Amino acid sequence: MSDLFWPGDERAGELMSGPSLLAAMVRAEAAWLSALVEAGVAPAAAKDDLADLVDPAGPDDVEAIATGAESGGNPVIGLVRLLRSRVEVRNADAARWLHRGLTSQDVLDTGLVLCARDVVEVVRGELTAQVGRLADLADEHAGTLMAGRTLTQHAVPVTFGLKAAGWLGGVLDAYDAVVALRWPAQLGGAAGTRAAWVELAAGLDDPRQVADDLAVGVADRLGLAATDPWHTSRAHVTRIGDALVGCTDAWGRIANDVLALSRPEIGELSEGAGGGSSTMPHKANPVLSTLVRRAALTAPQLGATLHLAAAESVDERADGGWHAEWAPLRDLARRTAVAASQTTALLDGLEVHADRMRATHDAALDDLRAEQRGMADLAGREPAHHYLGTTSRIVDAALARARTHLQENR
Amino acid sequence: MSDLFWPGDERAGELMSGPSLLAAMVRAEAAWLSALVEAGVAPAAAKDDLADLVDPAGPDDVEAIATGAESGGNPVIGLVRLLRSRVEVRNADAARWLHRGLTSQDVLDTGLVLCARDVVEVVRGELTAQVGRLADLADEHAGTLMAGRTLTQHAVPVTFGLKAAGWLGGVLDAYDAVVALRWPAQLGGAAGTRAAWVELAAGLDDPRQVADDLAVGVADRLGLAATDPWHTSRAHVTRIGDALVGCTDAWGRIANDVLALSRPEIGELSEGAGGGSSTMPHKANPVLSTLVRRAALTAPQLGATLHLAAAESVDERADGGWHAEWAPLRDLARRTAVAASQTTALLDGLEVHADRMRATHDAALDDLRAEQRGMADLAGREPAHHYLGTTSRIVDAALARARTHLQENR
Amino acid sequence: MSDLFWPGDERAGELMSGPSLLAAMVRAEAAWLSALVEAGVAPAAAKDDLADLVDPAGPDDVEAIATGAESGGNPVIGLVRLLRSRVEVRNADAARWLHRGLTSQDVLDTGLVLCARDVVEVVRGELTAQVGRLADLADEHAGTLMAGRTLTQHAVPVTFGLKAAGWLGGVLDAYDAVVALRWPAQLGGAAGTRAAWVELAAGLDDPRQVADDLAVGVADRLGLAATDPWHTSRAHVTRIGDALVGCTDAWGRIANDVLALSRPEIGELSEGAGGGSSTMPHKANPVLSTLVRRAALTAPQLGATLHLAAAESVDERADGGWHAEWAPLRDLARRTAVAASQTTALLDGLEVHADRMRATHDAALDDLRAEQRGMADLAGREPAHHYLGTTSRIVDAALARARTHLQENR
Amino acid sequence: MSDLFWPGDERAGELMSGPSLLAAMVRAEAAWLSALVEAGVAPAAAKDDLADLVDPAGPDDVEAIATGAESGGNPVIGLVRLLRSRVEVRNADAARWLHRGLTSQDVLDTGLVLCARDVVEVVRGELTAQVGRLADLADEHAGTLMAGRTLTQHAVPVTFGLKAAGWLGGVLDAYDAVVALRWPAQLGGAAGTRAAWVELAAGLDDPRQVADDLAVGVADRLGLAATDPWHTSRAHVTRIGDALVGCTDAWGRIANDVLALSRPEIGELSEGAGGGSSTMPHKANPVLSTLVRRAALTAPQLGATLHLAAAESVDERADGGWHAEWAPLRDLARRTAVAASQTTALLDGLEVHADRMRATHDAALDDLRAEQRGMADLAGREPAHHYLGTTSRIVDAALARARTHLQENR
Repeated sequence: MSDLFWPGDERAGELMSGPSLLAAMVRAEAAWLSALVEAGVAPAAAKDDLADLVDPAGPDDVEAIATGAESGGNPVIGLVRLLRSRVEVRNADAARWLHRGLTSQDVLDTGLVLCARDVVEVVRGELTAQVGRLADLADEHAGTLMAGRTLTQHAVPVTFGLKAAGWLGGVLDAYDAVVALRWPAQLGGAAGTRAAWVELAAGLDDPRQVADDLAVGVADRLGLAATDPWHTSRAHVTRIGDALVGCTDAWGRIANDVLALSRPEIGELSEGAGGGSSTMPHKANPVLSTLVRRAALTAPQLGATLHLAAAESVDERADGGWHAEWAPLRDLARRTAVAASQTTALLDGLEVHADRMRATHDAALDDLRAEQRGMADLAGREPAHHYLGTTSRIVDAALARARTHLQENR
Repeated sequence: MSDLFWPGDERAGELMSGPSLLAAMVRAEAAWLSALVEAGVAPAAAKDDLADLVDPAGPDDVEAIATGAESGGNPVIGLVRLLRSRVEVRNADAARWLHRGLTSQDVLDTGLVLCARDVVEVVRGELTAQVGRLADLADEHAGTLMAGRTLTQHAVPVTFGLKAAGWLGGVLDAYDAVVALRWPAQLGGAAGTRAAWVELAAGLDDPRQVADDLAVGVADRLGLAATDPWHTSRAHVTRIGDALVGCTDAWGRIANDVLALSRPEIGELSEGAGGGSSTMPHKANPVLSTLVRRAALTAPQLGATLHLAAAESVDERADGGWHAEWAPLRDLARRTAVAASQTTALLDGLEVHADRMRATHDAALDDLRAEQRGMADLAGREPAHHYLGTTSRIVDAALARARTHLQENR
Repeated sequence: MSDLFWPGDERAGELMSGPSLLAAMVRAEAAWLSALVEAGVAPAAAKDDLADLVDPAGPDDVEAIATGAESGGNPVIGLVRLLRSRVEVRNADAARWLHRGLTSQDVLDTGLVLCARDVVEVVRGELTAQVGRLADLADEHAGTLMAGRTLTQHAVPVTFGLKAAGWLGGVLDAYDAVVALRWPAQLGGAAGTRAAWVELAAGLDDPRQVADDLAVGVADRLGLAATDPWHTSRAHVTRIGDALVGCTDAWGRIANDVLALSRPEIGELSEGAGGGSSTMPHKANPVLSTLVRRAALTAPQLGATLHLAAAESVDERADGGWHAEWAPLRDLARRTAVAASQTTALLDGLEVHADRMRATHDAALDDLRAEQRGMADLAGREPAHHYLGTTSRIVDAALARARTHLQENR
Repeated sequence: MSDLFWPGDERAGELMSGPSLLAAMVRAEAAWLSALVEAGVAPAAAKDDLADLVDPAGPDDVEAIATGAESGGNPVIGLVRLLRSRVEVRNADAARWLHRGLTSQDVLDTGLVLCARDVVEVVRGELTAQVGRLADLADEHAGTLMAGRTLTQHAVPVTFGLKAAGWLGGVLDAYDAVVALRWPAQLGGAAGTRAAWVELAAGLDDPRQVADDLAVGVADRLGLAATDPWHTSRAHVTRIGDALVGCTDAWGRIANDVLALSRPEIGELSEGAGGGSSTMPHKANPVLSTLVRRAALTAPQLGATLHLAAAESVDERADGGWHAEWAPLRDLARRTAVAASQTTALLDGLEVHADRMRATHDAALDDLRAEQRGMADLAGREPAHHYLGTTSRIVDAALARARTHLQENR
C-alpha cells in the first residue's frame, strides 16, 4: 500500500490494510469453526481450515466485501456469505456450521485486535531500535556541550547527551505503555450472552462449560487472551489508541528538536539525507522530521475519536459508536507504524554537529552562566568550572534503563 | 474505491481519491505550461496538454508517485520527474518548461482544491435532493401529531412536519455554508513571491504584469479564482473543513432522531430497508442512520485537525502543519460525500408511522398538555383545543426557504 | 476575572463570565416580560424591568444559581425562582408573568448569544487594531530583505513586508468570518412551537400573529435577529466557534513566526518586552507569542466539541449535546478574547531587526539565489539584480485590502 | 466553586481550583526550602514552613498572582516574589534561599501533580462506591429478563444483571487505569540539569550526591515519587488525561443506557429524582445522565489537547506546548470529578423497572428467540427453555472481580 495523501505510508506495508483485516477475519472464523468441531458441537466433517477461500491479496474479494458492507452496516455479513458459498462446494458441513454462534462484532473486533497487534509488534521493534540508537547518541555525546534552551531562548548549558537521554526516556515511556497492552479475542454472540453456543451444545454434557471452553479454544488458536465479552466496554480499544498516541508524542518531541536545531542559523543537527525540492536545487529539507511531526499533530484527534466512540456505547451494541472506531483505529495504527519507521530512519541518519553546538555554547556563555553566578553569589563561592549539575548521572540512569530494555528485548 | 473499514465508502466513488488527486495535479501542471506558452514565456514548441502521460486510473503511476513522495516530503517532485521523463520523448521543450516557476505546494494545493470542489459539488447535489425530500415530508406531515420530547421525555405536542422542517432548516444552513466556499488556485512559487516567473519573463515587456497574467491564466483554465498566494494562510482550507463538518452536524441530528424514533418501543420512524444481521434473521437495523451518525461523530476531529494544521503555519512553508492537512482533508471530504449520499437514501426510504406517532401522542396527552393547563390558568381561560402554537407558520417558513433554494438550484 | 491556569485571562475581563451570563439571562427575561406587557398578553401592571433584582457582580447570586443548576440540568430554573421570589415583593404581577411562555433553553441560548456577541465585538476591535499595525509593518518593511524559509531551510529571498502582508491577510480573513456572524435570539418555548404564547394570547385578536410579534419584540429589545427557533439546529453556535478558531489560527501563525525568528541564533524579531524567568536573570522570553501559540494549540479542539455537540442534537432538546456546548463556548470565547489582546500587544511591541534579516539574507545569498540561476539559465539570460518577483505588488494588494477595512471600521 | 456554564461543578469543591494550585505550589516551595536546610545547603536559619504567607482561600492572593502570571508566562515568578517579600519580614534567610535552585516549571508541574492526585483520589473513591452499587445491581438482577438490543433493535434476551455487570466491568477497567498512575515530583532546575543545586552545594562533600538527595527529600516530603526531570517528556501528564477520559468513557456508556431505557415508551430505568423544567410541571428529566453524558462528550477532546501539548515539546522547555496543558488538565480533572460524583448519585438513585423489562421481553419474545430457533434447527433439537447462554457465569465473574476490588479498597 501507499497513499498519495500520506507520504511514507508504504512503510506500513499491509499492516491493518483491507487485505490484512480480511485475512484476520477469516482467521477468526476458521478458529471458531475449528473450535466448534473440536468441542464436538459441530460434526467432525465440518472441519475445514477455510484456507484459500478468499484472496485477501487480490483486489476482488476485499472490494466485493467492502462494497457489500453497507447493507448490514459492517463487512462480516458479506464475508460469511462469501465464505459459505465457496466452502460449500467442497464441504457442505463446513458451510452449514461456519460462523454459527458468532455475531458480526465478534469477527470484526477480533480481526481488528489481530491487526492492531501486528502493528504494535512492528512498532515495538522500531522503538527498540530507537532505544539502541538513542543510547548510543546519549553515550557518545554525554560530554558534548550545547546551549540549553527554554521558550526558544538560551537558558543554561546542557549536553547533547542529555537531550538524547531525554528523547530516550520518552521513547522508553512510550514502549512501556505499548508493551502493557492486552490482546483479547471478542467472543460473545449477538448480545454477549453466548446463548447460541449453549443452544448448539445442548446435546453435550455441561453446555455452559462447553461454551467457556470454546472461548478459550478460539483465543488460544489466535494467540489472544480469552476474556468475557467486551462488546460495549471499549477500554481495550482506547488503550491501544492511547499507547499509539503516546508513541507519536515521543517522536513528535524528537522531530521538533531536530527541526529547530537544523535551522541553518542554528545548524546543530541535520538529517543525514535531506529532502529535495521541486524547484530549488540547493535544498536539503528535514523531511523525515517534518513527516513525523505531521503524525504527531494528527494522532491525538484520532485517539480522541476512539474515546468518543467508546463513550457513545449504548445497548448491547452501539448505533454508530462502534462503527466510528474502525477507520480511526486503522488510520492511527498505520500512521503510527509509518512514523515509527521514519523516526528510526531519522535517528539512524541524524548528524550531530558538535562543533556548532560548542561554538554557540561558547558564544552564549555569558548568558548561559548567568544563573550560575547568582547561585555562586548566594553560596559565597566562586563559580565552578562547569555548570552541568548531575547531567552525567541523569544520562547514566537513562542508559541503564535502556540497557535493561535492550536485554529484555534481545 | 471502497473501504473495508468505512462501509459505504464506495458511494464517494473516485472523489478525492489518489487517482483523482493525481489527475488534478496533472491538470494544474498542464494549465501552467499552457499559460507559460500563451504568455510567451515558454516557446510555442513547449505546448503540450500532458494528456495521457500518466494513467491515474491504473494503479502503477499513483503507486509509484506515492511511494516516492516521502523523499521530498510530498508527491509533486516525483510527479514532475515522471511527467518530464515521459513528455521528453515527444516534446523536449515541454519537458524543459514543465513546472518551471511552480513549487510543489502550488501543484498540491491547487490539486487539493480541485478535488475538494468536486466533492462539494456532489455534496451540494445531495443537499438539494434532501431539501426536496424534506420539504415533501414537512408538507405532508404538517398536521401529523406526535409527542415533542426534551431530554428524552415527553414535553409538549409537535407535528412530524415541524420535526422535518427542523431537519430541513439544518440542511439549508449547511448548504448556505457550502455554497459560500471559494475555490482559489494556489500559485506563488517557492516562497510566494512569484520571483521565478518574473525571472523567466525578463525578456518580455513588464515581467511583473506577465506574472500577474500567468496567475489569472492558470486560474481561468482550471475554473478557479485567481488570488494572491495563500501558502501560509490556510483559511481557504479550514473553511472547507468547517462547511463539511457543518453538513455532518446537520445529518447527524437527523440520524439521531431516526435512531431514537425507530426503537421498536417507539416505532414512529423506520428505515425503508433495514440492515440484516449475520446471526439474527428477524433484524432490520437502521443501518444508514447508524453510518451517518458514525460520520457525524468523527468529522469534528478531522475539522479540528485542519484548524490545527492552519495554526501551525510558520515561515514561508510549514514544517509539518502543511503536510498534516492532506489526509484529514481527504478523509473528511470523502466521508462527507458518503454521508451525503447515505442521508439522501435514508430520507428517501424513510417510513413515517403516523399512527404510532398519534397513538403515543394521545396516550401521553395528559403530560403533553400539562404546560398548556398552566398557561390557560394564567390567562384565565379554558385550554384551547390544540396546543401547537405557530407550528404551521414555522413549517411554512421552512417550506418557503426550501422553495427558494430549489428554484435557485434547479 | 483571572485564571491561575491561563495566564492573561484577565485580559478578557468579564466577557462571558458567570456574572455576564447571569446579567444576559436577566436581560432576556426582562425583554420577554416587557414584550408580553406591550403585546397585551400580560397586564400592564406586570411591567418591571427586573433591574437590581440580582447582583451579577457580587458572588452570591451567581454562586447560588450555579449551585442550583444541576437539579434541573441548567441554571435557568433557579434563576427564574430567584427572580420570581425577589420581584414578588414589589410586583406580584411581574412575579406571576415572568418567564411565562419561555423555556430554559430560550433564556440560556439567548444569554449565550448576547455574551458571545460581546466577545466578538471586542475581538473585532482587536483585529482592526492589528490590521492597522500590520499595514504599517508591511508598508515600512516592504523593502526589508530577508531569507524566505520553507520547511525550516532557506529558500528564496522575501521581504519582511511580504511576511507582514501575509500575517495581515490572515487577520483579514479571520475578520471576514467574524463579521459574517449572525446573532439570533432563541425563542421557541418548550419544544419550539411557541404553543404557550398562543395559549396566553388566546384572548387577543390573532394569537399567532401576537406570537410572531413577541419574537420580533424581544429580539429588537436585545438587538438580536428575530428568527424561528433553532433549538436543535446549532449552526449558529458552530459558526461562532469556527470563526473564533479562525482567529486563533491566524494569530498562531504569527506567533510561530515570531518564536522561530526570535531564536537568538536568528534574531530577526523580538518581543518588545520579553518575559522574565524565576531563576535566570538574563532571560527575555517571547512570552506573548508563547501564550498566543498556546491558545492556537487548544482552540481547535474546543471548536470540534461545539460541532460534536451540534451533531448530537436529538428530539426537541438534546440529552447532553446541548449541555456540552456551554463551557467549551465560554472557554473558546474568553481564550480568543485573551489571545486577541495579546496578539495586538505582541504586534505593537514587536521589534524588527532589519539588520539581522539583511545579514542573514546576504550570507545565504548563494542558496537563496540558486533557483534564480536555474530560471535565468532556462530563459537564456543573466540573472536579474533582484529576485523578488511581484512581492511589492502583493504587499500593495494587502495594503489596499487593509485600507478598505480600516475605512469601513473607522 | 461552582460554574454557571457547567452545572454540578460544585461537586468538585476546591479540587484543582486556583486556590488549590496556589496551596500546592506553596507546598512545593516549602518542601524545597526544608530540603535545602536539611541538606546543609541553606543555613539552618533559613528554616521556615512558609505557612500562612499566602491565603489561598481568600481571593486576593490568587487574583494577584494570576493577574501577574502573564508577564513571565506562568504564575510562579509572581508567587516567588510574593512569598519572598512576605517571609522577609520574619526570616531574611528564608527570603534569600527560597526557590533557589528551582525553576518555574518545577514548581508548577509539581503543583499540578499534587492537585491531580487529589482529584484522582476522589475519583477512586467514587469508582469504588460505584463498584459496590453495581455489584449489588448485578447480583439483584441476575435473573431479571430484558430485551437485549443492538443497533437500537431487539436482538436476543439478556438480563439487567448482565447489563449492570457490563457497566461494572467498564468501571473496573477505568479504575485499573486510574490506580496505575504514578505521581512524580518535577525537580530539575532551569534546563533539567540540577546545575544550580550542585553549584549551591559546592561547599559540601559530593555535591552531586547532595543534589540527588535533595530530589528524594522533596519528593518524600510531598509524598511523590522521586524521578529524574521530565520537563519535556510529558507521558506522566498524558497518562493522567487518558485515565480520566477512560473514566468518562465508562460513565458515558452507563448514562447512554439510562437515557435510552428511561424514554417513557421504554420505561425500564429511571433516575430516582428526575430534574424539573422551568415550564412543564410534569417533567422528570434524567438530568444526571444528561450531565454525565455531557462530560463524556467533551472529555476526549481535552485528553487530545494534553497529547498535542506533549507532542509539541521542544528544546528544554516548550514555547506553548507546556502552557497549553494547564487549563485543559484542570478542566478535564474537575469535570471528571464532577461526573464521578454524578454517576455515583445516578447509580444510587437508579430505579429498575423489572416489570417493564419483563413485559417488553415477553412481548418481543418471538423476535428475541429467532436466533435460538435457527441454532436449535442446526443442532437438530427443540429450543431450550431459556436462551441466556452463560449470562449467569459472566455476571458471577464480574461480581468476583468486584469483590476483589472492594476487599482491596476497603
